[in-house]
Amino acid sequence: MIIDINSDMGEGFGPYRIADDEALMAQISSANVACGYHAGDPVIMDRTIRLAREHGVDLGAHVSFPDRMGFGRRRMDMDLPELECHVLYQLGALAGLAGRAGHRITHMNPHGALGNLASSDPAIAAAVARATMAFDPEIAFLVLPGSALEKAALEMGGNVVRLFLADRGYLASGQLAPRSQPGAVIHDAEQVVARVMRVIRDRQVDTVDGQVIPMPVQSILVHSDTAGAVELARRLREGIKAGGATIAPLTRHI
Amino acid sequence: MIIDINSDMGEGFGPYRIADDEALMAQISSANVACGYHAGDPVIMDRTIRLAREHGVDLGAHVSFPDRMGFGRRRMDMDLPELECHVLYQLGALAGLAGRAGHRITHMNPHGALGNLASSDPAIAAAVARATMAFDPEIAFLVLPGSALEKAALEMGGNVVRLFLADRGYLASGQLAPRSQPGAVIHDAEQVVARVMRVIRDRQVDTVDGQVIPMPVQSILVHSDTAGAVELARRLREGIKAGGATIAPLTRHI
Amino acid sequence: MIIDINSDMGEGFGPYRIADDEALMAQISSANVACGYHAGDPVIMDRTIRLAREHGVDLGAHVSFPDRMGFGRRRMDMDLPELECHVLYQLGALAGLAGRAGHRITHMNPHGALGNLASSDPAIAAAVARATMAFDPEIAFLVLPGSALEKAALEMGGNVVRLFLADRGYLASGQLAPRSQPGAVIHDAEQVVARVMRVIRDRQVDTVDGQVIPMPVQSILVHSDTAGAVELARRLREGIKAGGATIAPLTRHI
Amino acid sequence: MIIDINSDMGEGFGPYRIADDEALMAQISSANVACGYHAGDPVIMDRTIRLAREHGVDLGAHVSFPDRMGFGRRRMDMDLPELECHVLYQLGALAGLAGRAGHRITHMNPHGALGNLASSDPAIAAAVARATMAFDPEIAFLVLPGSALEKAALEMGGNVVRLFLADRGYLASGQLAPRSQPGAVIHDAEQVVARVMRVIRDRQVDTVDGQVIPMPVQSILVHSDTAGAVELARRLREGIKAGGATIAPLTRHI
Repeated sequence: MIIDINSDMGEGFGPYRIADDEALMAQISSANVACGYHAGDPVIMDRTIRLAREHGVDLGAHVSFPDRMGFGRRRMDMDLPELECHVLYQLGALAGLAGRAGHRITHMNPHGALGNLASSDPAIAAAVARATMAFDPEIAFLVLPGSALEKAALEMGGNVVRLFLADRGYLASGQLAPRSQPGAVIHDAEQVVARVMRVIRDRQVDTVDGQVIPMPVQSILVHSDTAGAVELARRLREGIKAGGATIAPLTRHI
Repeated sequence: MIIDINSDMGEGFGPYRIADDEALMAQISSANVACGYHAGDPVIMDRTIRLAREHGVDLGAHVSFPDRMGFGRRRMDMDLPELECHVLYQLGALAGLAGRAGHRITHMNPHGALGNLASSDPAIAAAVARATMAFDPEIAFLVLPGSALEKAALEMGGNVVRLFLADRGYLASGQLAPRSQPGAVIHDAEQVVARVMRVIRDRQVDTVDGQVIPMPVQSILVHSDTAGAVELARRLREGIKAGGATIAPLTRHI
Repeated sequence: MIIDINSDMGEGFGPYRIADDEALMAQISSANVACGYHAGDPVIMDRTIRLAREHGVDLGAHVSFPDRMGFGRRRMDMDLPELECHVLYQLGALAGLAGRAGHRITHMNPHGALGNLASSDPAIAAAVARATMAFDPEIAFLVLPGSALEKAALEMGGNVVRLFLADRGYLASGQLAPRSQPGAVIHDAEQVVARVMRVIRDRQVDTVDGQVIPMPVQSILVHSDTAGAVELARRLREGIKAGGATIAPLTRHI
Repeated sequence: MIIDINSDMGEGFGPYRIADDEALMAQISSANVACGYHAGDPVIMDRTIRLAREHGVDLGAHVSFPDRMGFGRRRMDMDLPELECHVLYQLGALAGLAGRAGHRITHMNPHGALGNLASSDPAIAAAVARATMAFDPEIAFLVLPGSALEKAALEMGGNVVRLFLADRGYLASGQLAPRSQPGAVIHDAEQVVARVMRVIRDRQVDTVDGQVIPMPVQSILVHSDTAGAVELARRLREGIKAGGATIAPLTRHI
């Protein structure tokens, strides 16, 4: 019974900070680091990489559309060859800084609007996967189970690690419950821990509509930018350990 | 008698182009490619890398301050650790795209205001050299003879290739003649070729004030963004061959 | 019989230029000036405004999505209140420079992807029109006949000037023929002039499929970034004069 | 006995916030609003303008070098005509949004590195002043007493409002004490209030080295981005009122 805890890190820019990366890094095992597109700059990337390395945290590239003002949350039309170039640019930039710090990229996941598109649109998923495989075929794709990106990565022989959103309710279809629906967001830390333990032990989760679905994941996402993120991660970490499971970086799950 | 011809490439951005890279790439042996800071974007970088590879042209990173509006020509105050991060970001981004295209970075030279500072300011030269050596200690620094960057690179055990500006007059001090001075810019192609041949054969050049100074260089810079650049490069190439010398990429000179 | 000739101006950025604005400005009567979003920067905007003023050319704001790398040609998701703020920011910035130069904005038209959306999407058209009317209710909207932006502007009591694309074929529906269709782009200058004269005289145009449709426009668009733009504009100007019509800035048509 | 309290506002960007503008706006009488160069974007500018208007707070343009990553704190080489264009672009953009919100710019002050240069460098001060006077000769310059910008503005017949930094120690020369010196930063709120009251009543302040110098100012700057900024402003406001003075927007002091 081992599990990874991942979180989005390095999402500040210039003078700005969004999350308490220093505190949160001590609670997680894998970090998805912004690459200067939706957030991050070379100085913040460097600091985040070093922080990850000090804590034995796996390093991932959190790639995005080039849209800092919109924090990568805006869908942008972009042809696929261009998109591939942007993915490679970000992977390379992060790797350039990581190499100096004695760390290396071992996973990737697309952020925001690009992440949503890569989950639902096979052509975009394939473009992201092609660029990543060309960069390094050993990199693990951190994906939602059943997503287009999962499929694209597997078809190209890529490594895949599946993700569970600890504080979100699921539908019977396996998709996230829309935020408008009761139970879509779970605020109670104990409940979050209990759900995660169920996922670890039984590979199952209870849906918002009272069903049980399989949840064959290896990694738990903790949102870094919500209030109480550090405390939630801490309690999750303790709950997992108390439940007899082991927290291990994402690369241990390939 | 071998010599490298290098030029700045990939200096367009989005819809913009500055030079006829397609034509010029056929005449040179090393390309200094903009990395998205003073110019270039991931699509243009990719196209430029592939063009270089097709022509057997060595790939260099032309790193800059982050100032696209000013084309990297504006001096910006930046502390040294930040500067190092920016250099690594650019080297990594270019390498990320180069790897997919089956090419690799074998040299670097800083552009514009950063280039000027790295030539004259030992602290900035050392920062640029440290970042580059951390990225890849085999990378050659393309430098002006006598510059601070040459010294910094040598002190760190780096590879150095020295540069001659084919169309510029020199002072007895070895520095470039200020543009206000007669003879500072040489427009006649035959004269340019003759000067280059003298540099190749004798490792010497005649200064604007009638003296002769040593010019121990391995590479000739052809400006890509001046009118007639392609034609000048073509005549230079032919003149060098007719003079019995061989044009070979920069890495052959290490 | 009077007509306006307009063109997109000031679409360079930093060191880059796309069109020969100096030559073209002498041939047109209204200029649509980029505001630093898809193209343009404060220096280029200032130069373009002054050039327009010297030639007695009307000044328009060519507003865009904030996407310089994509030249404003990429559709971006953006909520309507945000879009309105971006339109006002651009109008204000251009007006700030225009005021010093003794010129003022008298028309506007959205560029690229925003232009396409404002033509077809009533909600986006209304947002663009609201922001513009709030800035200055006297500003003329330069629109395609039948577009959503025309309708939105009229509903708000705005001034509207309708546009004819001199070198494009039209369908019987009044829409532009897709570029894949024969006759979609007209390259022959004489044919372009003949079509424009027919529009001026008869308020009609022959469609690509052999029909005749009304074309009640007051302004002719000449693309600034195609080869031969200046020559086409010159011949158009001469042809119009020879045909007995008068070229007058857009504001004369309100 | 009347005094203005001003603060830098709207210094967020996209998803980022730096200060609690909502709370601070209720305590001040004049706001210096970032214009999208060192910070701010059209949406944040609009929100900040409306907030100022609701609180009866005067609106100022806080103009900067175009350097978001460096928060405008980095000196950039820029020729003076270009700098003037950048100042006008920012003034215009802010005015464009202000007009819709029923507010208007009545003062300006340069931010960060540009602010420092405009205080010490007469040529840069003159460029900033020229652009501002061209935009609107009624705008008040918010300046440090004795600065180059104060002189330039006065020479051009501009309005000037002088500034006191409430939490900073002064030298006998009238300049700010370097932060390395004891007493350079005053953390005690009561002491800050006492100093301000002395400035209001006596137009004098005690220097860090025990002297008394004239301090003929009309406005007090409260830093928005330090911990406890809102509380300090609140106590300052109460202290000033308790001391029998009136807080009034900057334009009341012209």
